Amino acid sequence: MTPRFILTLRCSDAVGIVAAAASALASAEAFITESSHFGDPETGLFFMRTVFHATGTRFVTRSDFAEVMAPVARRFEAELALHLADERLKVLLAVSRQGHCLNHLLHQWHAGELPIDVVGVVSNHDDLRRMVDWYDIPYHHLPTAGDKAAQEARILDVVEASGAQLTVLARYMQILSDDLCRRLEGRCINIHHSFLPSFKGAKPYHQAHARGVKVVGATAHYVTSDLDEGPIIEQDTVRVGHGLTGDAFVRIGKDVESVVLSRAVLWHAEHRVLLNGRRTVVFREGA
Amino acid sequence: MTPRFILTLRCSDAVGIVAAAASALASAEAFITESSHFGDPETGLFFMRTVFHATGTRFVTRSDFAEVMAPVARRFEAELALHLADERLKVLLAVSRQGHCLNHLLHQWHAGELPIDVVGVVSNHDDLRRMVDWYDIPYHHLPTAGDKAAQEARILDVVEASGAQLTVLARYMQILSDDLCRRLEGRCINIHHSFLPSFKGAKPYHQAHARGVKVVGATAHYVTSDLDEGPIIEQDTVRVGHGLTGDAFVRIGKDVESVVLSRAVLWHAEHRVLLNGRRTVVFREGA
Amino acid sequence: MTPRFILTLRCSDAVGIVAAAASALASAEAFITESSHFGDPETGLFFMRTVFHATGTRFVTRSDFAEVMAPVARRFEAELALHLADERLKVLLAVSRQGHCLNHLLHQWHAGELPIDVVGVVSNHDDLRRMVDWYDIPYHHLPTAGDKAAQEARILDVVEASGAQLTVLARYMQILSDDLCRRLEGRCINIHHSFLPSFKGAKPYHQAHARGVKVVGATAHYVTSDLDEGPIIEQDTVRVGHGLTGDAFVRIGKDVESVVLSRAVLWHAEHRVLLNGRRTVVFREGA
Amino acid sequence: MTPRFILTLRCSDAVGIVAAAASALASAEAFITESSHFGDPETGLFFMRTVFHATGTRFVTRSDFAEVMAPVARRFEAELALHLADERLKVLLAVSRQGHCLNHLLHQWHAGELPIDVVGVVSNHDDLRRMVDWYDIPYHHLPTAGDKAAQEARILDVVEASGAQLTVLARYMQILSDDLCRRLEGRCINIHHSFLPSFKGAKPYHQAHARGVKVVGATAHYVTSDLDEGPIIEQDTVRVGHGLTGDAFVRIGKDVESVVLSRAVLWHAEHRVLLNGRRTVVFREGA
Repeated sequence: MTPRFILTLRCSDAVGIVAAAASALASAEAFITESSHFGDPETGLFFMRTVFHATGTRFVTRSDFAEVMAPVARRFEAELALHLADERLKVLLAVSRQGHCLNHLLHQWHAGELPIDVVGVVSNHDDLRRMVDWYDIPYHHLPTAGDKAAQEARILDVVEASGAQLTVLARYMQILSDDLCRRLEGRCINIHHSFLPSFKGAKPYHQAHARGVKVVGATAHYVTSDLDEGPIIEQDTVRVGHGLTGDAFVRIGKDVESVVLSRAVLWHAEHRVLLNGRRTVVFREGA
Repeated sequence: MTPRFILTLRCSDAVGIVAAAASALASAEAFITESSHFGDPETGLFFMRTVFHATGTRFVTRSDFAEVMAPVARRFEAELALHLADERLKVLLAVSRQGHCLNHLLHQWHAGELPIDVVGVVSNHDDLRRMVDWYDIPYHHLPTAGDKAAQEARILDVVEASGAQLTVLARYMQILSDDLCRRLEGRCINIHHSFLPSFKGAKPYHQAHARGVKVVGATAHYVTSDLDEGPIIEQDTVRVGHGLTGDAFVRIGKDVESVVLSRAVLWHAEHRVLLNGRRTVVFREGA
Repeated sequence: MTPRFILTLRCSDAVGIVAAAASALASAEAFITESSHFGDPETGLFFMRTVFHATGTRFVTRSDFAEVMAPVARRFEAELALHLADERLKVLLAVSRQGHCLNHLLHQWHAGELPIDVVGVVSNHDDLRRMVDWYDIPYHHLPTAGDKAAQEARILDVVEASGAQLTVLARYMQILSDDLCRRLEGRCINIHHSFLPSFKGAKPYHQAHARGVKVVGATAHYVTSDLDEGPIIEQDTVRVGHGLTGDAFVRIGKDVESVVLSRAVLWHAEHRVLLNGRRTVVFREGA
Repeated sequence: MTPRFILTLRCSDAVGIVAAAASALASAEAFITESSHFGDPETGLFFMRTVFHATGTRFVTRSDFAEVMAPVARRFEAELALHLADERLKVLLAVSRQGHCLNHLLHQWHAGELPIDVVGVVSNHDDLRRMVDWYDIPYHHLPTAGDKAAQEARILDVVEASGAQLTVLARYMQILSDDLCRRLEGRCINIHHSFLPSFKGAKPYHQAHARGVKVVGATAHYVTSDLDEGPIIEQDTVRVGHGLTGDAFVRIGKDVESVVLSRAVLWHAEHRVLLNGRRTVVFREGA
């Protein structure tokens, strides 16, 4: 079977973008299997994601189609990216001591349900090494005691050495420095264990319990230097009754965290998430 | 402001459809504000919905754009429809004695939240006349006692006299004859008070209660001659505990029914729902 | 059929409360049909709600059972209340211009689904008078222009003259003075159109849209002088996509607001909600 | 700390049960921390679950309290059970090739979130042995090829040898014989990957896809000889769009299955689930 390609495009909205992009693809005999567009009337930006494969013999490779699309990108001054759908995203996972998100992501990856390659796990603790060993991937124990800058430099070393294209804070529980946030901008996803913007910072479930909420949630977002304020990718919620303690909130919330984070990773890896200022456009699978 | 148009298209999938449609629109200086596509690999059908408005002076009216799109439709042997977004769909509502769905739809319509014109209400009972009178719309009391064929003929008379483009069975509680189903095919929506295909037919909440389910639901679907088997437009659910009686299920289910039905009517009226055999494609607002 | 009674009780937790209460009821030949207890390990408070009816001939009336329970209340220094289940709570509704919550509550009440008597509607606008007239209940137009204290005094007059036991702010959109909050403490429910504590104050849906959330919600809570900080009774949420505007959030949120508020009113009217500091205990129907 | 006890009781409903049970406990200086009751007006049955601990010195052990409660059980001809809350339920897991439910249950158990002891895993395939080995529990490969009765006899041998009090079919994919169903009655939980009673039998997600549903679900139920008709413990659902294939339904459904099954196991292990004919009473944690 011929490879599938994923094209994403972002530019100022204008007449003729869809026509230009689609015509370029049609001229190269590309068969479109998925296509999503969104023009934001507020920001004046246009977003597009198209999945296609070759049906002809002249245009076949990634560089063939990159050449076909280049004039479109120039004409609309668009940011354009073209990915091979089967090229798995290299992902580095970061954890502290809670293993539920890690366990869920690793299992899904191992079961072939996430189009990623997990290139390693970094942790400020050694607790989860045995779980990671089972999957035959490197475990980097980088304690935070002492020099924070040095520890973060070692994280960046791992990112670079492993070629990680995405870093996932799967309950990492450390606040990254502004510098590290900037370096990983747009390629670092965090799971926050509350329904943001409620209950930022530490112990969100216990904050939620003290406030007496009837629903708790989890939020996957891109990391920025503004703590728990990065663009949201996905959120979900679960009901909680008056008889549950804060610790019970913690336990019940774990499943929501795992599911929300794995959806965010899946969608990022499938190039479904595009940045729109402080917000995201998420072209969800199956709409 | 220039009018917005909604274009829908259905045809066999092929290379170049999006390009052809988008190019035709671009050549007519149309500015696309929403666009959704779906190619079903199983049925080989392609579906498209595009919202646009004119930015030029040569192509402005519905017939201008119909002319522009005609060659595209011919080339791909597509079913193509072109609607003025501000042209409100004429809708006839049918009810029996339960007023919750009727109340919800009428309120939303009156508040300007549904792009429809309610042209009347038919009922086999006289109970809800006073509610309908408040909205200053005709109430047709068509009792079912006696000749069913004659009663259905009078319903069809109302449909035709009122110009209704859609008939909504908002808890009408009568089974339509095969003949009436066929005549209203694709333009008659029913709300069934269960999560189909569970609990077809009469008293679904009491069936659900007897089975001991933990979640109940509602289903909005197009009416076909195959009872409760028509293409599903929308479904939703709500949790129920062991301490609720069947009658409590009935009460709790009413809100889900109202919301599910009004979403289905909204989406149909905005031309977001396209038939795909026994299934539907629903291009949801805001994805 | 003999009347049903609803007993609620709150006190410091201790050995023997359930036994004492249940034994007192058993000695009076009361048949318990619902019973819920909760002991909060954090506050050390115990909460109970029991529904029962008489099966004997000696203990039959509300005052019979009040006498039976009095020693229990004394022994445990409990706040105890005893209600006739069929005694409908007198409720005053307050609205501004948005009618969706009002429409939903009035319809449910009229359909016999809420154990309340609506004794009137107050509003700072005259817009919704015609809707209220249909239900044959008094509409009090109390404009806020000018002297706020005077306007609030007139609200209190209506509360007192009507005998309202509960005031429901069904999208009233005015901030009550500290004084009015105190006077209505524990008997005034507000619907806030966000998932509190996110997005307090004005225009919460537009705040939510600007933040880029993927889920919006509504919160019903008791009114306190601390704006949007009162004890939460019920919350629920609905998903929103990137393609929706802030105004679309407003429209989509209306159904959640209506449903959340009507649940809170139902549960309050059935004496299912007990205050536990800043939080509530809600003995939900059917668990 | 003194041990906590969980008391469950089922009998014909009558005046005085709660009083008798609570008085017996109070006389033994038991402090009740949780208590839930339900009287079913349809079946005339009464259900109770009470969690308590000793505060005195005379009544301390399980047998002390069993003695205290015996007269209550006799008087009301009640089925009464008394469990030590910290006594973990011995659980045997059964799987085929899909590991998501197994992975989730084993992780939760290992993280100390399920009050169970996993005594082993049986499977008709050898695929998941490595996962199970990591947890240091026995893996019993019992292929179904050949004599079904013999294979089931070996399953029963494992149940008996391991002392398993509950068998969980965590996607076991084999239909148990009537005989095995009877032997495990009330102590065997299955996860069915649809929202029962919709889509019984094989390939439920593909059935759901063919029907065009907008929501899919999962159901945890006790196994009976009537396939997929046993008493339901828990259900939950997730939305699916038109663009998803049947295989995508399978993938998306896995998280719901895992969560629904683990809730059912938790609630069963905490003695929260009582049988009420074809239905269950589930005294949910935190209500």
